[in-house]
Amino acid sequence: MPELRKDPVIGRWVIISSERGKRPHDWAREPEQKRGGFCPFCPGNEDKTPPEVLAIRPDGSPPNTPGWILRVVPNKFPALQIEGDLNRRGEGIYDMMNGIGAHEVIIETTSHDLDLADLDEEQIYRVLWAFKERMLDLKNDKRFRYILAFKNHGQAAGASLEHSHSQLIAMPIVPKRVQEEIEGSRRYYDYKERCIFCDIVRQEILTEKRIVAEHEKYLVFEPFAPRFPFETWLLPKEHFSHFERMPEEEHRALAAALKEALVRINKTLDRPPYNFIIHSSPIQEADYPEYHWHIEIIPKLTKVAGFEWGSGFYINTTPPEDAARYLREVTL
Amino acid sequence: MPELRKDPVIGRWVIISSERGKRPHDWAREPEQKRGGFCPFCPGNEDKTPPEVLAIRPDGSPPNTPGWILRVVPNKFPALQIEGDLNRRGEGIYDMMNGIGAHEVIIETTSHDLDLADLDEEQIYRVLWAFKERMLDLKNDKRFRYILAFKNHGQAAGASLEHSHSQLIAMPIVPKRVQEEIEGSRRYYDYKERCIFCDIVRQEILTEKRIVAEHEKYLVFEPFAPRFPFETWLLPKEHFSHFERMPEEEHRALAAALKEALVRINKTLDRPPYNFIIHSSPIQEADYPEYHWHIEIIPKLTKVAGFEWGSGFYINTTPPEDAARYLREVTL
Repeated sequence: MPELRKDPVIGRWVIISSERGKRPHDWAREPEQKRGGFCPFCPGNEDKTPPEVLAIRPDGSPPNTPGWILRVVPNKFPALQIEGDLNRRGEGIYDMMNGIGAHEVIIETTSHDLDLADLDEEQIYRVLWAFKERMLDLKNDKRFRYILAFKNHGQAAGASLEHSHSQLIAMPIVPKRVQEEIEGSRRYYDYKERCIFCDIVRQEILTEKRIVAEHEKYLVFEPFAPRFPFETWLLPKEHFSHFERMPEEEHRALAAALKEALVRINKTLDRPPYNFIIHSSPIQEADYPEYHWHIEIIPKLTKVAGFEWGSGFYINTTPPEDAARYLREVTL
Repeated sequence: MPELRKDPVIGRWVIISSERGKRPHDWAREPEQKRGGFCPFCPGNEDKTPPEVLAIRPDGSPPNTPGWILRVVPNKFPALQIEGDLNRRGEGIYDMMNGIGAHEVIIETTSHDLDLADLDEEQIYRVLWAFKERMLDLKNDKRFRYILAFKNHGQAAGASLEHSHSQLIAMPIVPKRVQEEIEGSRRYYDYKERCIFCDIVRQEILTEKRIVAEHEKYLVFEPFAPRFPFETWLLPKEHFSHFERMPEEEHRALAAALKEALVRINKTLDRPPYNFIIHSSPIQEADYPEYHWHIEIIPKLTKVAGFEWGSGFYINTTPPEDAARYLREVTL
C-alpha cells in the first residue's frame, strides 16, 4: 500500500510507494525507452492493459477489443491504490495516510506515431471530453478531493511509453502548487473583489506583447514571470473555476486553442518533450469566484533540476516577450 | 540588466535574463559538456576568470596567479548584476525590480578530476569557510536579503563545468522554498514554542530508521516525506538559525559529516549527479529561535520534471527507510 506523507515543515504531501526489488544500482542508469518495441496501447493489444473504464467506440464494438478511437484504462502501475480507507494517522510529529486514489491513462489515439498536436480538433476534443467524463465520475467517490489531469510527452518529460497518452490522478489531498494558487487568488479577491486570472487576461490582451494566440473563448500567452523558457499558459476568457463544469462548446473551443498552442510550440522548438498540467478547483467544492482553471504547458528544454527544486528559485534566460514573438511568428 | 519578476498569483520571484543571440532552435539540443577541453578553473588559467574576491594562498602568492588551494571568483556569466538600484516598480497588476545581486563561484580544489567528496576534511572545511567568509562580506551590502549557497555536480544536475565548484547567489529577495520553510517553522513555533527542526532531530534519533550517520554535532538522515529517492538532509544538532554565524568548530565538524554523507551517496549510487543547497536564514535578520539552517542533498536519479514543477506533487518510489538502510550499509 503506498503512503501519503506530509512534510512537517511546509505541509507538502508526497506519495511514498515502493518499486519492489529496485536496488540502488538500478538508479545509476535509467533504462532508455524502447522505440519500436511492443506497445500495450496499440489496437489489438487491449488485453495488455487493465480493463477499460471508458471508451469511444463508434462501431459499437465490445469493451477491450479493437474498434475504439479513444480508451481510458487504469494505470497498470498506479501511484495510488483504489481500495481501502484513508486511515489518517500520526507518528510523533509526522502525519500520514494511506495512498488511496485512482490513476488512469487516456489513450488518445489508435495511431502509435501521432502526437496530441497532430490529431484533428475533433479527436483533441474527445480527449478533453474524456478528462471531463472521468472527473465527473470520480467525483462521486467522496474520498477524493482533487483530480490532476496532465500529460508527459517524450522521455525527457517523464513519459515511459511513446504512444500518445495523458493521465488522471484522483487523490485525497490538494497538490501544493494548486493550493498555493487558490490561496494567492483568494488574497487578491479579498482585496480587489475580482478574480486575478480574469485581470491577467484583461491586462495581457491590452499589452499584447506576451500573447501567442487569441481565440474567441481562449487566450494562449506566456506568463509574466515564467519559471522556464517557453512556458505557456492557456486560459478561458470567461470565468470558470472548474474545468469539468464548463458547457460543451467551451471544451470544443478549447480543443482548437490547445491544438494551436501545441503546434506553435512544436514548430518553434522542433517538437520538444513537454508536460502540460490542468490546474482546476477541488472537485467537491462549489464554484469559486476567485479561482480560474487553466492549463500550463512546460516544454522540457533545460537540464537544471535539483537546485530549483531545492530553492524555489528560477533563472529563466528567455524573456516571455521574446518567446511569445517566436511562437507568434510561426507559419501554421 | 536582468529583471526580477514576481508571479502575481503565488508571489514567487524569478530572474528573467536574456542569453543574447539564443534562437529557439538552439534550445532543441543542449550542447554536451566538453570533457577534457580547456578548463578555466585549473591552475595556470587564473586570467580566464574574473579577478578573485577571496583565495587561500599558503605560499603568499599574488592574486590571480597559481599558488592557491581555493579560489572564489565572480561568475563570468552572472544571473544577477552587482551594479545599480533595485528600482522596485509595477506594470499594471505585475511587480518587478532590477536583477541586482552577486553571483560567485567557489573553485574547491586545484585538481580537475577530484570531486568534493574526494577532498580531505581539511579542504572541505576550507570550502565551508569560504561560504561563511563570503556570506559575512556580502551581508554588508544592505540591498541583499538572502544568500543561497549551492552545488550542482554533474551535467545532469546542471553543472556546466566539470572542475569541482560550488556557487553563491546574493539576492534582494528570499527564495520561495526558504520563505515557506520559515513560515512553516514559525507556525509550529507559535503553537509549540519549540523549533520544529530540533524536534525532527530528536524524533529521528529516537526512531533510528531514517538515520544515515550520526556525528557528535550533526545528523545525516533521510527526511520523512522526501520528494526524491535518496534525498538526504544534514542538520546541526544544536540550534543555529544562520550557517555563517556558527563557531569555527561547528564548521569543522560539518566538513566531516558532509564528507561522510557524500561518500555514502557516491558508493551507494555509483557517483550520481547531485545538487546540494544550504537553507539558512535571511542574512540581515537577527537569530531566529524557530528556524534551523540545514543542507539538502538531492541525487539526480529520476527524469520526472515538468509535472512535479507544475503540480507540486511528488511520487517517490524509494521509501526513505530503505534509502537510509542502503546508505548505512556502505563500507567506508
